[in-house]
Amino acid sequence: MSNFESSTWSLIPGGITAPDGFQASGISAGLKTAGNKFDLALILAPKKALCTGTFTQSLVRAKCIDLCIERLFNTSGRARAIVINSGQANACTGKRGLDDSIVATRAVAKKLGILESEVLLCSTGVIGEPIRMQNLLKGVDLLVNSLSDVGSRDAAKAILTTDLIEKEIAIEGYLGDKRVRIGGIAKGSGMIHPNMATMLAFLTCDVELPKDVWDSMIKRVVNSSFNVISVDGDTSTNDSFLAFCGGETLDKEYFHELEIGLNLVSTTLAKSIARDGEGSNCLIEVKVEGAQSLIDAQIIARTICSSSLVKTAIHGCDPNWGRILAAAGRAGIRFSPDDVSLWIGSFQIMSKGLPIAFNRKLVSNYMNEIVRLDTSNKETLFICLRIGDGEHDSFAWGCDLSSQYIHINADYTT
Amino acid sequence: MSNFESSTWSLIPGGITAPDGFQASGISAGLKTAGNKFDLALILAPKKALCTGTFTQSLVRAKCIDLCIERLFNTSGRARAIVINSGQANACTGKRGLDDSIVATRAVAKKLGILESEVLLCSTGVIGEPIRMQNLLKGVDLLVNSLSDVGSRDAAKAILTTDLIEKEIAIEGYLGDKRVRIGGIAKGSGMIHPNMATMLAFLTCDVELPKDVWDSMIKRVVNSSFNVISVDGDTSTNDSFLAFCGGETLDKEYFHELEIGLNLVSTTLAKSIARDGEGSNCLIEVKVEGAQSLIDAQIIARTICSSSLVKTAIHGCDPNWGRILAAAGRAGIRFSPDDVSLWIGSFQIMSKGLPIAFNRKLVSNYMNEIVRLDTSNKETLFICLRIGDGEHDSFAWGCDLSSQYIHINADYTT
Repeated sequence: MSNFESSTWSLIPGGITAPDGFQASGISAGLKTAGNKFDLALILAPKKALCTGTFTQSLVRAKCIDLCIERLFNTSGRARAIVINSGQANACTGKRGLDDSIVATRAVAKKLGILESEVLLCSTGVIGEPIRMQNLLKGVDLLVNSLSDVGSRDAAKAILTTDLIEKEIAIEGYLGDKRVRIGGIAKGSGMIHPNMATMLAFLTCDVELPKDVWDSMIKRVVNSSFNVISVDGDTSTNDSFLAFCGGETLDKEYFHELEIGLNLVSTTLAKSIARDGEGSNCLIEVKVEGAQSLIDAQIIARTICSSSLVKTAIHGCDPNWGRILAAAGRAGIRFSPDDVSLWIGSFQIMSKGLPIAFNRKLVSNYMNEIVRLDTSNKETLFICLRIGDGEHDSFAWGCDLSSQYIHINADYTT
Repeated sequence: MSNFESSTWSLIPGGITAPDGFQASGISAGLKTAGNKFDLALILAPKKALCTGTFTQSLVRAKCIDLCIERLFNTSGRARAIVINSGQANACTGKRGLDDSIVATRAVAKKLGILESEVLLCSTGVIGEPIRMQNLLKGVDLLVNSLSDVGSRDAAKAILTTDLIEKEIAIEGYLGDKRVRIGGIAKGSGMIHPNMATMLAFLTCDVELPKDVWDSMIKRVVNSSFNVISVDGDTSTNDSFLAFCGGETLDKEYFHELEIGLNLVSTTLAKSIARDGEGSNCLIEVKVEGAQSLIDAQIIARTICSSSLVKTAIHGCDPNWGRILAAAGRAGIRFSPDDVSLWIGSFQIMSKGLPIAFNRKLVSNYMNEIVRLDTSNKETLFICLRIGDGEHDSFAWGCDLSSQYIHINADYTT
């Protein structure tokens, strides 16, 4: 899904079921309006696995998120399974939303022979629509029977809504003599401007870690991956990121290397969500350099990535650098505009706060090659803004804003 | 431009030159690329007028804003004239930006026979482009000679960029036995998400007030007018609102009634900017009721108005209330989702946190009638969200998001 350099980690197939002991399945249960699309997924972790999660910070959130948080808290992270339905978000459905969530997880727990409190639920789809429970319950037997250690792709398919492609990754590395694998799947598309988590993403890892270590690792990882992408500035009611670890104990000396691997997986999934943003033609990667802190760099980078005017300029292959500067200026972070340098791709546009002579035609051609590519293979447009001499750099990812986004969202409804 | 109910104030023609003693002009000086469009304006206030202003909070701002702030500070608000050029924003133009601003205001001051420090400058247009100074300086004689007490419309024309219509208003009322007039002009269109002020707006009023009273009145007025509109979430580098008062002294007992008038003028101009947002088909008015504070209500209302998903749903005439709730939920203001009621137009959609049976077809028809109207006469789509039993209500204004916005901003450049 993405090329990256790492001495420890290399890409492998298998997604979320690549790590030892994890199983997944995805089926068509008749939840989506269109007949035979996959719409129900299950992830099963090995015994004693540990699960941590981050969820939408929106006040208006689906009841399944309340259920996840409560169960993770009550069991100290000892969850074993996640059921995921697409088609209905089950948000703003009142008391029924929670009742249905409980009934759905109970049915899966019973079939799996585990505790109800060990099963979590994530929903995605239209807000205000309750889950088609009859169909979901009818599908539970098939869902559990389909569990397999090569089931990641089916699960990745079943969690999509308006997404065009499945988002799946796995990596493998040796930490000492222990072979460690990390896998992940995600879905995104619209209402993507995560605040502490993204629409839906799941990660598995086959080592055992102390709960506090796992919790804090995942928090850091989410902050520099899912929390710095944006498709349209709208935060979803159902954003959830759940991460399992379970297997042999990992020695403390390898924690740092493991976190690098977790970052690779989460960043790749996050970028793939931005790349597959509704109506988009390319991934936009904004790097902010020379900031006074990591969070300063992240906020500026994300503000640029989220700007409608930057996104439309890129869609129009227009090196309209004034919009990039304007977005940086309103991010609320102090820097001196006189120190700013800017690059679009490898072309330098500004130096020390002033535009320099650049070949507008060449830069526009560079943009055009990326934006006009076939949508099934979206390339990345790079923007780099140096704001000073600080030590901190960071990234954010977004996508261009096209008429297609308008069409999708003016027409997509219940 | 807008109908409103007020026992004191009534609409009159004349715009910014309706108040006694104010003159304005607008000419074509050859600043815009297309030949004979108006692009240079001048507003002249009577002797001893007082001027106050609010400006963009963006860190990346045009040098003319530095000049305005410094001169208003140095003269304690004793400015007499504002020169406004469209075509070039003169932002990110380095030292030259300030030099040109000084030279332009010096030329106008000389021709008017007033102090250089009494002349302000506002610029709007493409970021990174310096003002075409040669053309501007050539135009100064004509600009000053064209000053007239019916010159408001010419000035309103000359400050436009991608705007489709001029934005002008004047009102008249009797405070005691004193006839008081307030006038205003504005421009908006894109990069509209003001933070303390909007793109460009100017107000005149023919009474004299103590400086502290005028300053604080205008701050309050801006916070509930220009600061609650949004077209595209992007804050401009050149946002400026300047307000003059000058004439006979007004008795303290009429201050409240005057502020109502100032609010009427500013709100009408702000709404006209949102209504004329790039590519828009309608004005969206969001009222939030029952909040714990005015600022809570404003933040939620503005978040709803700024949501790309709400804006596209309205463009698609889709009563997708889930997006409205989702936007309210991410506004960062605490409320109980279980207490929420929602109306679109006169149709109630939710009650006590739950959707109620509503005729989707009827609501969609209501939306369709507003959105599909001819763009030269854009109507208003009303959304009302009651979030609790608090005492505070507030409004925000925005516009729908159409493919036309993408076309304008993917193609509009230097």
